[in-house]
Order: sequence, then C-alpha cells, then structure tokens
Amino acid sequence: MITEKEFQFLIEKERKIIDAKLKKVLVKRKPRSLYEPSNYILANQGKRLRPILVLLSAKAVGGQYAKAYNAALAVEMLHNFTLVHDDIMDNADKRRNKLTVHVKYDVNTAILAGDSLLAVAYEYLLKGLVVPGNKVVTYFTKGLVEVCEGQSLDKEYELKKSISINEYITMITKKTAAMAEMCCAIGAQIGGGSSSEINALSLYGKNLGIAFQIQDDLLDITGDEPSFGKKIGGDLIEGKKTFLFVKAMETAKGLEKALLKKIIVNKGIKQGDVAFYKNLYQKLGVLDDARKEIMKYTLKALRQLIQIKNENDKAVFTLLAHSLIKRTT
Amino acid sequence: MITEKEFQFLIEKERKIIDAKLKKVLVKRKPRSLYEPSNYILANQGKRLRPILVLLSAKAVGGQYAKAYNAALAVEMLHNFTLVHDDIMDNADKRRNKLTVHVKYDVNTAILAGDSLLAVAYEYLLKGLVVPGNKVVTYFTKGLVEVCEGQSLDKEYELKKSISINEYITMITKKTAAMAEMCCAIGAQIGGGSSSEINALSLYGKNLGIAFQIQDDLLDITGDEPSFGKKIGGDLIEGKKTFLFVKAMETAKGLEKALLKKIIVNKGIKQGDVAFYKNLYQKLGVLDDARKEIMKYTLKALRQLIQIKNENDKAVFTLLAHSLIKRTT
Repeated sequence: MITEKEFQFLIEKERKIIDAKLKKVLVKRKPRSLYEPSNYILANQGKRLRPILVLLSAKAVGGQYAKAYNAALAVEMLHNFTLVHDDIMDNADKRRNKLTVHVKYDVNTAILAGDSLLAVAYEYLLKGLVVPGNKVVTYFTKGLVEVCEGQSLDKEYELKKSISINEYITMITKKTAAMAEMCCAIGAQIGGGSSSEINALSLYGKNLGIAFQIQDDLLDITGDEPSFGKKIGGDLIEGKKTFLFVKAMETAKGLEKALLKKIIVNKGIKQGDVAFYKNLYQKLGVLDDARKEIMKYTLKALRQLIQIKNENDKAVFTLLAHSLIKRTT
Repeated sequence: MITEKEFQFLIEKERKIIDAKLKKVLVKRKPRSLYEPSNYILANQGKRLRPILVLLSAKAVGGQYAKAYNAALAVEMLHNFTLVHDDIMDNADKRRNKLTVHVKYDVNTAILAGDSLLAVAYEYLLKGLVVPGNKVVTYFTKGLVEVCEGQSLDKEYELKKSISINEYITMITKKTAAMAEMCCAIGAQIGGGSSSEINALSLYGKNLGIAFQIQDDLLDITGDEPSFGKKIGGDLIEGKKTFLFVKAMETAKGLEKALLKKIIVNKGIKQGDVAFYKNLYQKLGVLDDARKEIMKYTLKALRQLIQIKNENDKAVFTLLAHSLIKRTT
C-alpha cells in the first residue's frame, strides 16, 4: 500500500509534469497581446489540485494518466479563467504574491485573457477525445455553468445583510465544489469508468470541494501567514461572508451579534481588529463548527471510495483528503 | 426556384422562430442576478444572421432545421458573449439603441453575464448532439478561440499608428469571418454533409463574413442613419481603423495623409468634421475600393456554392449574399 511519503512524492511529481505542460500551452501562440497575459496567470504556480483530481480519477478506474493530461490542462485553464475574472470583480490586487492580471495589465486585457483561457481550455479538452467524448465536454460545461452561477451568488450575497448556512453551502457547492466534482467525473470518464465509478468519484470530488472551501475559510483565521500568501484575517478585513461569519451570525446574540453586523455595515474591519474577532469566533465556537463541518464533508467524500476497487488508488484518494484537512496554507 | 420575396419570408420566419426560442433560454434560470443581465442582451433583437447560417447550412446538405436549432441558439449566445465583453472594452454606452449591459448594470455584472452566455452556449450546443458531435464542438471552439484573437488584434491595432490592409483583413477574418465560417461548418456537420460540402460552406461563410465586415465599415459612411442605429461617421468619430481608413492611409499623400494621421493622433474626430472626411474618402476613392473588395469576397463566397446540389438551397445562399451587399443598415 502507498505510504504518505510516496503519496506526496506522486503528487509532487504530477504537479511538476502539469506545470511543465502548462508552460508550453500558450507560450508560442499569437497574438502575444492576448496570450502573454493569459500565460502570466497560468504560470503562477498553484496547487494544481484540479488537474491532479482528473489524473487520479482516470487512474482509479483503470485508465492511464497519459490519456487524461489534456483534460487536466483544460480544467486548470478553466480554473484560471475564473481566477482572472473573479479578481477583476473582487478588485483584488494580488494573487499568490504577484499582481493580478487586471492590475499588471488592465481590465480590458484581463477580460480577454480570461476569455482566451476558457477558449483554449475547450481546445485542449477536445484534443484527441474519442467517443464518448461528448460526455466529457458535457461534464466540463456543467462545471463552467455552475462556477458562473456560484460566482454570481457570491456577488449577490455580498450585498445582502445576512445569508443562511444553506445559502452559503449552495454558493460554495457551485463556486468551488462543482469544479472538483467535474474534474473527477471527467477523469473517470476518460479512464473508462463505469457509471457507478464515475458517480462515486464525482461525489468524492464534490464533497471534498465543499470541505476544501470551508477549510479555506477556516485558514483565514488559523492559517500560517508567511506561506499562505494572504493576510491572516483577510476575509474579515474584506467583510466576506465566510462559513465562520455566517455560522457566527447564526450563533451570536445581543452585543456579539451587533459586533458581527458591524462587519457588514462597515464593509469589513480594520487590520487591528482581527485579533478581537478571532477571539469572538473562538468564543462562539465557530472554529470548531467549521472543523466539524470539514470532517463531515470529508467523511462523505471518503465513503464514496468503496466503489474504487484498487486498494492503492483508494489509499491515494484517502491520503489526498487527509492532506487537504491537514493543510495550513 | 425560390423568389427573392419567398427568401425574405423564409429568413423572417426563421428569425422569428430563433427569437422565440432565445426568449425561453434564460428566462427561468437561476440565479436571476446572473441570467437577468444575460437575457437582457439576448432579447435585444438583432439580425440573427449567425443562427440563420447554421440552419441554412444544415438544410443545404440535406439535413433538417429541427436538428440544428440548439446549435443555432448556441452560436447566437456565443455572439452575444462577444458583444457584452467587447462593449466593456470599447467603452460603448449603447447597442441597438439600448444601454449596453455594463452601463445598465455594471462592469462586474457584464463580465459574468458574458461568461454565462458562453457557458450556456456550450450547454445548448451539446444538447442532443450525437456522434460525430465532437466535430461540432471543435468547430465551435475554434470559432471562439479566433474571435478572442481577433478582438485582441483589434485592441492592439487601436494603439498602433497605422496598420496594413493585410493586418486589417487578418483581424476581421478572426473577429468576424471565423464565426460565420464556424456557423456554416456546424450546420453542415449537423446536417450530415460530406467533407467537401462542409468545406465549401465554411469558405462561403468565411468570405461572406469578410465582405460583411467591410460592408459594415462602408455603411458607417454611406449608411442609412435612422435604421442603422448608430451615428453616421461613428467609426471616424471614434478613430477606428476601418477598411476605409486603412485604405485611405495607403492611398493618400502629403496634406491628405497628414489629415488622416490627425484622426489617430486625436483619437477620433468631431461630429462636425464627418462630412469633410467623407469627402476625403470619396476623393481618395476608398468608398469604391471598399465596394470592389466587398464584391471580391462575395464572389469568392458564391463560387463555393457549386458544391451545393439542391438548386433551391443554392439560390437561398445566393440571395443571402445579395441581401447583405444591398443592405443599408
């Protein structure tokens, strides 16, 4: 059975392969006025979790990595399309310590860079696809539709005084989890999986995606600043409606609730108030609520793995889920 | 053989069917914060030329309209995706006498509305596609990639002092003609055409698209103001590098050339100077040059029709080309 060290080695190896392949995608395409900015964000090394989900899913149903690389590149490009456009909408200056595309270039360039990433994503998805390739494109398109809907809900919720936990879960399911779900579905489809395998891996991806996003919200408070690449408490400073905030609003009463409402009224808090609100979150127990929720969705994901026959592949998906829970960045 | 009146009746009938179908696409989808703005532009009735090309091409190779409607809706949504994003980039306030999406709502909403139109376009393209559906999606994606590249060239050329006619033709081939080419290819593919039929119709679409864009540039000067929905001379006022301008720069010398350069230096001209530059264009003969070029590409398109076996379908495509040359709006 694969050890944790071997797992980490495997992931790191595939991440590097994906990085190397991504580097080649846009570098020679013309016009450079279009592809240079698209390449700028694509070269900004991330976790590459989505393409890794594609590859692992193809393998888990008995397929080969080799047939899934183009789809893996496609999902990473789709992801980067959402990042470029979301960064414009969120007025974000930096991403992973580098200037965002619309700041380094301008908004028009960033809109078009995002569009082109999506266009080339479809191009790669289609490369060498054979029957039943339509299913792969259908999964991909469903993921795209949902990520647009999720982003729209996110922007809509920014303007609301309060949202429920259900609304929050719906939003992150569309904005984050649908993409992970799609990655697993595509990989499993390309790998030749049965419909129960595809279904199981899709649900693994979806639930892992929800856990991942709540973990992201939690790390805003408990994260490891230098490597996280974002300020601790950044979501509080920006007044975002994270899991922690929504749960805190549900739990708090009286003065504490009024203090939380102030975050929304003032559209965020000052850097100096982060420690205070961190304490408030702790007092209200919402950090533990988040941990429980992360565990709940992770277990939901892991339960799907009963459909994976190969024990080694099952172990890989289990270790992947564990590594996401344990991450500090 | 079909008469011109019957042709116009046919086109009008299909346009209405497309309009009616487009009305239903987004009206019930949620969240409304996403689909209401997307629906706003989609309901802004246009010529619907692209979906009509899809339908006519399917029919011309022996297929049925019925199987091509979803693809027809898809290309119109793709077109509207480009309009929403281009209007942001061009800082355009109005389109067909209605406020543009980013003006009626805001830039963020418009970015996401555009993205969602593209997403739903793929969704409709895939609806009910059977093997060899991948080819249809591949044509569509190629069209999307090219339209992004064309828009990027257009923005790039805005910043250049001068461009050549070749550069201009490359740009409009990508920005406008590739989409018409794709519409014909998709229709012919869905209709079950042979590869020589698909190829011929694609080239028909491409050349018609080039002629269409040059005609658009010409109509900026010779067009029929009230129904054109844009100001006469709008391209001059905005300092756009149209066919007329590029050709005029190639032809003019001395003072006349200096007067043309002023358009670029000043980033456009004043309303009051439109008549003067119209006269200059006439004197330089570029209006006639444009007419010749439109005729050249239209004839190139028409020559492809030798591949169409059914005489009635051939007549329909011929009348379509003629109607575009004769249009005043």
